Amino acid sequence: MAALGHVSLVGAGPGDPGLLTRTAMARLRAADLVLYDALIDERILRYARKAQRFFAGKRSGRHAVTQTAIQALMIRAARRGKRVVRLKGGDPFVFGRGGEEALALQRAGVAYDVVPGVTSAVAAPASAGIPVTHRGLASAFLVVSGHDEEAFTSAIGQLQPHGVTVVVLMGLARSAAIASALIDRGWPRGTPAAVVLDAWKPGQQVWSGTLDQLAADTVEVDSRAAGTLVIGDVVSLAATSVEVRRLKARST
Amino acid sequence: MAALGHVSLVGAGPGDPGLLTRTAMARLRAADLVLYDALIDERILRYARKAQRFFAGKRSGRHAVTQTAIQALMIRAARRGKRVVRLKGGDPFVFGRGGEEALALQRAGVAYDVVPGVTSAVAAPASAGIPVTHRGLASAFLVVSGHDEEAFTSAIGQLQPHGVTVVVLMGLARSAAIASALIDRGWPRGTPAAVVLDAWKPGQQVWSGTLDQLAADTVEVDSRAAGTLVIGDVVSLAATSVEVRRLKARST
Repeated sequence: MAALGHVSLVGAGPGDPGLLTRTAMARLRAADLVLYDALIDERILRYARKAQRFFAGKRSGRHAVTQTAIQALMIRAARRGKRVVRLKGGDPFVFGRGGEEALALQRAGVAYDVVPGVTSAVAAPASAGIPVTHRGLASAFLVVSGHDEEAFTSAIGQLQPHGVTVVVLMGLARSAAIASALIDRGWPRGTPAAVVLDAWKPGQQVWSGTLDQLAADTVEVDSRAAGTLVIGDVVSLAATSVEVRRLKARST
Repeated sequence: MAALGHVSLVGAGPGDPGLLTRTAMARLRAADLVLYDALIDERILRYARKAQRFFAGKRSGRHAVTQTAIQALMIRAARRGKRVVRLKGGDPFVFGRGGEEALALQRAGVAYDVVPGVTSAVAAPASAGIPVTHRGLASAFLVVSGHDEEAFTSAIGQLQPHGVTVVVLMGLARSAAIASALIDRGWPRGTPAAVVLDAWKPGQQVWSGTLDQLAADTVEVDSRAAGTLVIGDVVSLAATSVEVRRLKARST
């Protein structure tokens, strides 16, 4: 019955189980095997009642399992007729290596589908009341990974300081360097900037200030948390009505 | 009982009711009044069983209702104790004037929340098998509205041709001009480009080719459809296994 095997690359959204899509929930309920990343909420995994669970995430920068091993496991299980869910935080095609996995499945001739999710790139700013676009402030937004310095610098390129919101995922550990890189490219030091930690999770925290403050490395963040940086004039709209605990600042 | 009134700015996702989030569904079920935009699927509206429906979209470029009138209506209904859902295609904070509505609600002292949705900026490319990021091809993506020439040109600025995927929403009518603008800025004429129409809806269509072909205005699209342009090397990954009807090309 190998023909019945199937892989779904599923986005779990930013954390809150309420931001899971109906299709994602259906795929989890039907799953025989779930391969999940770090930062996936336990309440979401619980929908996969009858599935075997396999942790495929990274811990402290090390890969728990190699990408090749994850792909081989998915393919092997699907060929044995299993319904496999590859569960990723946010959206599977936004920095999740979902594209690589889709290619591997295509090459192996395994049936698969992609279930888009709510991406943290938009939902994390929203959780702090920040719209990534806003008439008169930003008519575009750039989503970039902060993890790799070279890739970040290349993506930022000659991006102009106004009119575009910059959303940095996986940039928490390099937030001061990221802010400095933008200032070096002519972005005003007073450009509003925010850090959103654990968006849509119970411990959510928001810091907001300026690019200058971010560059001065005065923002104390728990680097184990999932964090999103938002830089641009839209940050000035951050809802004061949103209940947030402020991050401690080392100085100021 | 005015204190019980509430407004939810809810993202309906790209079209497929399966891509609605669980919280969006709950808000619709509890709603007394739903103000919805054009292009919202009837199957999604049906969840709002007990709600009065109000069409707040645009038709043929004209506003059916002014933004001010929409905001006034939401505020008035909430003050009367109604549970109001403002339903928007995709995500409410991605080109949906959601930020403006949130500000108006804050100023009026009306309780509100934001329910992020699956944005077409990521989900439309995914429906054609295109990941907006991919190792070695794109470490960032820019989401921009194609509607306003000046805003588009300013956002594109001096963006470098490689490493960043450009996703253009509301740019269908100006797709040739948009492609030409990129070529004028040094983007190679052979850069892969795709047009995804009615993503995640029954009539979905995908065209893929090059920036040059897009600039030559040979792609015949139904401008009434909701369309997303994707430009960049990741378009070369478009899944050949995705079942799509190809758009007719006027020449070639």
